[in-house]
Amino acid sequence: MANRIMTISREFGSGGRTIGKEVAARLGIPCYDAELIEKIAGESGFSKEYVAEWEEATVSGSLFAHAFADRDYSGHSFQDDLWAIQNKIILELAQKGSCVIVGRCADYILRGKADCLRVFIHSDMESRAKRIVEQYGERGETPQKRLKDKDKRRAAYYQYYTDMKWGAVENYDVTLNSGVLGIEKCVDTLEKLF
Amino acid sequence: MANRIMTISREFGSGGRTIGKEVAARLGIPCYDAELIEKIAGESGFSKEYVAEWEEATVSGSLFAHAFADRDYSGHSFQDDLWAIQNKIILELAQKGSCVIVGRCADYILRGKADCLRVFIHSDMESRAKRIVEQYGERGETPQKRLKDKDKRRAAYYQYYTDMKWGAVENYDVTLNSGVLGIEKCVDTLEKLF
Repeated sequence: MANRIMTISREFGSGGRTIGKEVAARLGIPCYDAELIEKIAGESGFSKEYVAEWEEATVSGSLFAHAFADRDYSGHSFQDDLWAIQNKIILELAQKGSCVIVGRCADYILRGKADCLRVFIHSDMESRAKRIVEQYGERGETPQKRLKDKDKRRAAYYQYYTDMKWGAVENYDVTLNSGVLGIEKCVDTLEKLF
Repeated sequence: MANRIMTISREFGSGGRTIGKEVAARLGIPCYDAELIEKIAGESGFSKEYVAEWEEATVSGSLFAHAFADRDYSGHSFQDDLWAIQNKIILELAQKGSCVIVGRCADYILRGKADCLRVFIHSDMESRAKRIVEQYGERGETPQKRLKDKDKRRAAYYQYYTDMKWGAVENYDVTLNSGVLGIEKCVDTLEKLF
């Protein structure tokens, strides 16, 4: 497979999705994020909302609860089906052509199967709190609480399916602190590195 | 303090030192590495060899042994003196002008005191093993064993003095995988980001 793929993992509120879209636009290649959710929903029969939330799906914060949730008597779970469909779709997209894929363990799913630039975007709590309030508005919980919950769930989801640590430096080719560097510099850097 | 500083932490064999020197040369600013060791040796009275090895100084691999090594009856250790001298010299260098500083917890020492771009260079075991054999020749131990020992010691040194995790993504503004990207692309990226 000769297509070059950029996978972007990101902390909630770090601007990783915005960076992915902007880099893809500059490179003239597609960025799969909402579209990926639609495809997975379409093939699985689950709602877009369910699929979107699944990435932060360990609602109790417990891997154990996640691992044993929604299983039928044979021990098979709906999440396992979703995971299989997600794998299939991401592999198909990577075969179709160069693209940017945000989230969804794409770095892991494509390991050894595509020429990937594996990116992680992170930022300090303060910048992220400011960003999520700007982007998604105020909620009942403090932004700090929302960030911690989301990160915890993404990390649990990633670790459950990949058996690797989310955000661990050795799993990425480049990590960028968007709070310090700014979105624009992150986009420039990734465009040049790709 | 208006001078901009680049601090480079690096896994052994990742080419971090080479990258630092090359970036500094392109930017026309000094790169402190061997020179830093000489300065610390000069001010402390310890040999250059001792100072150089100190960064990988937890010879037993045990933080505990390191913490209690070479203490006099008052609980004061030679390492504490060296640490104080290293702090002083790194702060002076940062005040003198823009520069690149390799290793020595400079990112931590300059936190809140200088405008730093905090870099971490890492690579996969295979590329690093190849590199250390090319650079330093064969030894009695396997390259893998040498890499593990050095990394363990650098991590222990960093954690002991900074109380932070060495190589943890949140402590850096940019991390680069030199094995995947190559030395040249790392240099280009850092030159542009600085």
